[in-house]
Amino acid sequence: MIQRPRGTRDFTPEEMETRRYYEAMMRSACVSHGFREVQTPIFEHTELFTTKSGPGIIEEIYAFKDKGDRDICLRPELTASVIRFFVNDLTNYPRPLKMFYYGPCFRYERPQAGRYREFYQFGAEAIGSPTPEMDAEVIGLAASILERTGLKDYRIRVGHIGLLKGMLRTAGVEGDQALPILQKLDKKMYDEARTLMEAAGMSIESAERVIAMTKVTGPIEVLKDFEGEARTYLEEVFEILGHYGFRNLEVDLGVVRGLAYYTGMVFEVDAPKLGAEKQICGGGSYSLSELFGGEKVFSTGFAIGFDRTLLALEKEGVAPKRFRVKAYVVPVNEGTRKKAYEITAMLRREGVSADMDLMRRNMGKNFKYADAAGVENVIIVGEKEIETNSVNVRDMSTGEQILVPIEGLVARLK
Amino acid sequence: MIQRPRGTRDFTPEEMETRRYYEAMMRSACVSHGFREVQTPIFEHTELFTTKSGPGIIEEIYAFKDKGDRDICLRPELTASVIRFFVNDLTNYPRPLKMFYYGPCFRYERPQAGRYREFYQFGAEAIGSPTPEMDAEVIGLAASILERTGLKDYRIRVGHIGLLKGMLRTAGVEGDQALPILQKLDKKMYDEARTLMEAAGMSIESAERVIAMTKVTGPIEVLKDFEGEARTYLEEVFEILGHYGFRNLEVDLGVVRGLAYYTGMVFEVDAPKLGAEKQICGGGSYSLSELFGGEKVFSTGFAIGFDRTLLALEKEGVAPKRFRVKAYVVPVNEGTRKKAYEITAMLRREGVSADMDLMRRNMGKNFKYADAAGVENVIIVGEKEIETNSVNVRDMSTGEQILVPIEGLVARLK
Repeated sequence: MIQRPRGTRDFTPEEMETRRYYEAMMRSACVSHGFREVQTPIFEHTELFTTKSGPGIIEEIYAFKDKGDRDICLRPELTASVIRFFVNDLTNYPRPLKMFYYGPCFRYERPQAGRYREFYQFGAEAIGSPTPEMDAEVIGLAASILERTGLKDYRIRVGHIGLLKGMLRTAGVEGDQALPILQKLDKKMYDEARTLMEAAGMSIESAERVIAMTKVTGPIEVLKDFEGEARTYLEEVFEILGHYGFRNLEVDLGVVRGLAYYTGMVFEVDAPKLGAEKQICGGGSYSLSELFGGEKVFSTGFAIGFDRTLLALEKEGVAPKRFRVKAYVVPVNEGTRKKAYEITAMLRREGVSADMDLMRRNMGKNFKYADAAGVENVIIVGEKEIETNSVNVRDMSTGEQILVPIEGLVARLK
Repeated sequence: MIQRPRGTRDFTPEEMETRRYYEAMMRSACVSHGFREVQTPIFEHTELFTTKSGPGIIEEIYAFKDKGDRDICLRPELTASVIRFFVNDLTNYPRPLKMFYYGPCFRYERPQAGRYREFYQFGAEAIGSPTPEMDAEVIGLAASILERTGLKDYRIRVGHIGLLKGMLRTAGVEGDQALPILQKLDKKMYDEARTLMEAAGMSIESAERVIAMTKVTGPIEVLKDFEGEARTYLEEVFEILGHYGFRNLEVDLGVVRGLAYYTGMVFEVDAPKLGAEKQICGGGSYSLSELFGGEKVFSTGFAIGFDRTLLALEKEGVAPKRFRVKAYVVPVNEGTRKKAYEITAMLRREGVSADMDLMRRNMGKNFKYADAAGVENVIIVGEKEIETNSVNVRDMSTGEQILVPIEGLVARLK
């Protein structure tokens, strides 16, 4: 038997109903916020991702050569692709340019619970100017998307990379020297961060102050002891989100997102019920387009882990209503088959989901099938009944059966 | 500047609106027919496609080795994947099992007008028993999908591989010997077909009769001179499609679909306005699951070329209405900004697409942006007006401006 590749999934009809339901919900949240969808190819030139994240990423992705000896790879994420698209073709769009995307991404890593080699991301990127309004808009969209799904237990943690960078700079550490320190802090590997800070010439006291800073969490008021632009900026972001009506957020200066292109505000969303792999969203403001050969623009974006969000919803017991076919049309004999086709066609044209016996089953087997398939109603097309332009409709949940005129059938089933 | 890979496309917000509109339309046609969506991985073990189509296919696809030295490839089509999924996991579902899918597929071929290396297919597969009802259901679904899109100029051409195979068998040619002949006939390469038939020992007369048969086209009555099961079968299929109300179909025995696993009815749909590359859908009944290690089941399916169908709609001048953001909310000064956020949040929560000034523009620049972005209404949040809980709403198409109470704003804009 040929199997699907390791770390990938097939989705059953039931799973796809759930997935499309939440995808549509997330899309409608974006549309109501004036974000518009874009789509980019499944594979890209590998250079796109090494430019963004360094050559080390090749180890973690599906990189290969095409028949023309070009280095291409399956995209591991979508921010790079969307910004490349912006640089190539979208620079003349009015700003702010607010975009969202949804699709599969790929990482070559050891598959484990909740981690797949093919996984889905839903995300957004807004390109414009670096204002607290813009950052609040993007955090607000992420929050609205999660709110609409019905997820209850999640926390939005907002930090500012500028605070940590500022403190390191004061201690004489910046640029390429600061990045590996930030990466260790991002992973909460404090000993390694300490070693790097000391190697960079920082005093033990400054190093401890930096580490202490990454442990600052709580309401916006926890920033009162800090000075400078970053604090004022975050206060404005929190104020705007308050006006929008969002309450479920807190400061967490431990949100570092250890990548060089993040410039200011950074945020993450956790669903604590997921345990160790609890992060379902990450984002922030960044500057990336100039790396791809475009003008420098300020951007803010996020990516939601679609699969993990669905897992979190499942753990909370949130589930969309199962789809069931409304009508299964069964002719009692060959003589009423023609009428049964006509009724099926009429229902389908009117948007009522309808099935018909395609296997030439007898009445008993047809009812057995209707039951197994979870059909809502069986429409029995009988000889006597069609003389009066009626059919019998049996409700499969209650077993109740009533005679319905064909002209009233759509209204009854809708 | 880093470019997208050759033969792939990025889709702008406008293009995505069109694509999602038609995707949703096609999906709703499937749902109303009781078909249910499935999804399979973007890449598969290469073996899946060589098993189905022979080793020659490797030349035409994105095949590569992953880091674990496994032969994998980007899927060139979805029927093989869906049937593999069925064999692996879905054999216990009630039959008929009616599935549909939508997604990107990949072929390594020279990009040209209307042919891309990454392209999208929308298709369906029904697994059950080989009845004319099943085949009519599948052709009917393809027809309904196209009907719903609004496409007017298309032709459904239905053939039966059994008629040609029968004639070849009578002349002593079958199995592996027949396949290359069918492939030439499929491509209307008559000279090559003639040579192969003669080499297989057929008389010139029989060869000419076979070729003449592939030129039989017209209403179902053109089959009156043929005898046998295939004729009766197609007559039943046409009769059922007539009951369903489909008229736009004809017999075309030149539809051959030169692949070994097709067993009986085969069909194609053309949109003549597309010129040389006019085929937008192809399908038929086939037997494939046993090749992948499963039980033998009879299946009928089709794939619609999503990109070409959209191109055909465009050529017919059919276009979905452009999406425009309903409301662009502009505070007249800092004092009304808080109220503006609240109004924006209210509209969004009620499902009205709403944007707000995120760039701290002045009133004049905000109107210029609203115009460029194609916003429907500008909501002006003024100091005097909010004292009476009202805002001014300017309709950007007519220039008309009226005072609207905030509590009536959602109703007015919806």
